[in-house]
Amino acid sequence: MTRTQVGIIGAGPAGLLLSYLLHAEGVDAVVLEARSRSYVEKRVRAGVCEHPTVELLREIGVGARMDAEGLPHHGFSLRFDGQDHRIALTELTGKSITVYGQQEIVKDLIAAHEAGGYPIHFEVSDVELHDVDTDSPRVTYRDADGAARTLDCDVIAGCDGFHGISRPTIPADRVQTFDRTYPFAWLGVLARTPPSHEELIYAHHERGFALHSMRSPEITRLYLQVPSDEKIEGWSDDRIWSELEVRLTTNARDFVLREGPILDKGITPMRSFVTEPMQYGRLFLAGDAAHIVPPTGAKGMNLAVADVRVLSRALVELVQHKRSELAESYSDTCLRRVWRAEHFSWYMTSMLHVDPAADAFSRRLQLSQLRYTASSRAAATSVAENYVGLPFA
Amino acid sequence: MTRTQVGIIGAGPAGLLLSYLLHAEGVDAVVLEARSRSYVEKRVRAGVCEHPTVELLREIGVGARMDAEGLPHHGFSLRFDGQDHRIALTELTGKSITVYGQQEIVKDLIAAHEAGGYPIHFEVSDVELHDVDTDSPRVTYRDADGAARTLDCDVIAGCDGFHGISRPTIPADRVQTFDRTYPFAWLGVLARTPPSHEELIYAHHERGFALHSMRSPEITRLYLQVPSDEKIEGWSDDRIWSELEVRLTTNARDFVLREGPILDKGITPMRSFVTEPMQYGRLFLAGDAAHIVPPTGAKGMNLAVADVRVLSRALVELVQHKRSELAESYSDTCLRRVWRAEHFSWYMTSMLHVDPAADAFSRRLQLSQLRYTASSRAAATSVAENYVGLPFA
Repeated sequence: MTRTQVGIIGAGPAGLLLSYLLHAEGVDAVVLEARSRSYVEKRVRAGVCEHPTVELLREIGVGARMDAEGLPHHGFSLRFDGQDHRIALTELTGKSITVYGQQEIVKDLIAAHEAGGYPIHFEVSDVELHDVDTDSPRVTYRDADGAARTLDCDVIAGCDGFHGISRPTIPADRVQTFDRTYPFAWLGVLARTPPSHEELIYAHHERGFALHSMRSPEITRLYLQVPSDEKIEGWSDDRIWSELEVRLTTNARDFVLREGPILDKGITPMRSFVTEPMQYGRLFLAGDAAHIVPPTGAKGMNLAVADVRVLSRALVELVQHKRSELAESYSDTCLRRVWRAEHFSWYMTSMLHVDPAADAFSRRLQLSQLRYTASSRAAATSVAENYVGLPFA
Repeated sequence: MTRTQVGIIGAGPAGLLLSYLLHAEGVDAVVLEARSRSYVEKRVRAGVCEHPTVELLREIGVGARMDAEGLPHHGFSLRFDGQDHRIALTELTGKSITVYGQQEIVKDLIAAHEAGGYPIHFEVSDVELHDVDTDSPRVTYRDADGAARTLDCDVIAGCDGFHGISRPTIPADRVQTFDRTYPFAWLGVLARTPPSHEELIYAHHERGFALHSMRSPEITRLYLQVPSDEKIEGWSDDRIWSELEVRLTTNARDFVLREGPILDKGITPMRSFVTEPMQYGRLFLAGDAAHIVPPTGAKGMNLAVADVRVLSRALVELVQHKRSELAESYSDTCLRRVWRAEHFSWYMTSMLHVDPAADAFSRRLQLSQLRYTASSRAAATSVAENYVGLPFA
């Protein structure tokens, strides 16, 4: 049996960042992760770091490789009706975003844990949370060798994602959940080819949404809106490239879609989900364990970072100084930003996708909204300030 | 049988303004109106003139009484969650709105017609449009004395509102219509009492939307969201005042709802409707004849003014110079602004009303949108620039 102050379930960006922030303040924490180190370091997920995320990673000393290898972006393209419009993020807000893969942040944080000697236990199994409504919660699990273990904690942080075990540990009658599934999904591909455009392209086309993104100067990330029940088998590489070409190409003759070997392809459902509150007794949820957004606004990982920043302060107060005010307000504080991100993600999703159930009136409203966003400085600034990330609370 | 260059159906703001603009350019026009002069001069409808409307009325010399008696407003209140937030229209956009009743504009335009000797025939009946798809369209009608009349025209302008005869004259297979009915209505009252607040108050309350507005320093105009099938009989004056009190009052202690004798009350459905195109042959639709908006954004009359400004130029070109380019682009030019206003009106309506069918997720998004609008300068500017009126094309 071991003891720690904060038991952290999950070594994704939320769990690792929380652990690192706590250790930096002298709080003892242990991270438990079901997958292997190699798996989490290669898991391709989010790729856009908003301004407050970048600032925080720099501030705590884990931003060096991000600054060296990440791609700062000062705008993105909005394409519809065959025209290209640029949302000039930096001109409108004074801030930028950084394209840097979530798995790279995970690598950087794991390296920082190694350097500091902070414990992460990979490949654990049978994780269960106990007594979370008392002051002595416990985690039981099997370690990588299959040995039964118990971790006694002051607090448990559930950072184990949407499908993790933390959220279901909370009795169903103690939380309210909010849910929205969208009638479409994203077919995502990772291709070995330089990006076709230096910035992201969000394209609304009558055949559906498309997104041109990138992971590095050599790797392009591309997405296509597909029906929610679509099977990946129906999408040959050729079909994917020709559909991307149709949706991304504008009347502007300078755009040429660069094709290359497809390294990976898959279909992701689109869903919004929020749990309220994000806390039950001594169990605090952060990141995808508490809420998910459709990927259109690039808010998922950034929201996890924002949660963890609030949570780390609250837990330092709670376990080091026995002051519970911040812990008690944790959920309310986070949910303001969560709902802002939920609204922005819904807004971007609704504006850019083709809803198969939309009537003609809704389709005209959507077109008017796109035109307005592309032509009004106020509307573009509103999109931009949400996209680069509103200041932390 | 008489002849004119432009036969105008309807003596509301659209028809009268069009007639006045045409006469000012030396184009001959005749206005036909089913109601009496007294009726149209007393018909209470819109009350908010956006900045471009005010500028136009001034520019053409019919703005003197509006400038003397209208109430310039530099902001409005947005109330929700018991808090008051001001949308500072003038600070955000450099522009203002003017509260001046539609019927006052109608009076001013009728007086200007009298002064210029421009013909308006009131109390006509059995109006029918003929040969609108030829270069010699005709209007047949009975005059106030019941005598059958024919008006030969070069062009007919259908300015006879949503229930008028102009739009149905167009063959159904030559237009596309877009429609949205909302699951609620407005109960509107006109009360003899000074406004309770110097500016308009848009209130979102869990019991429904409420609007505090005014017509003059002595007359207050108030609205309550009610179910779409609501009967006015269920609403005593007492019930109206107490419901207004609940929805409009905030935690701020300086607001007191001033009650007074209710002069008029009625229930108005909420609907969005657009016809495309707004033209068929030599028949041009303008204002409510072509499109209606829910009243939340105060856009209905202003959109009519914008249509007529475009139409008057197009018709001057067409009938005086035989150049049809502007007439041919009339519909497309107007529809850009129409859809902008439709979107804004839908946006304001959705943000402020309680949709009885909304799920918990939608209600949370709505609250987040309200909070964001009240706290972001960009979001408030976006609302404000639409509210004061985007510049004419």
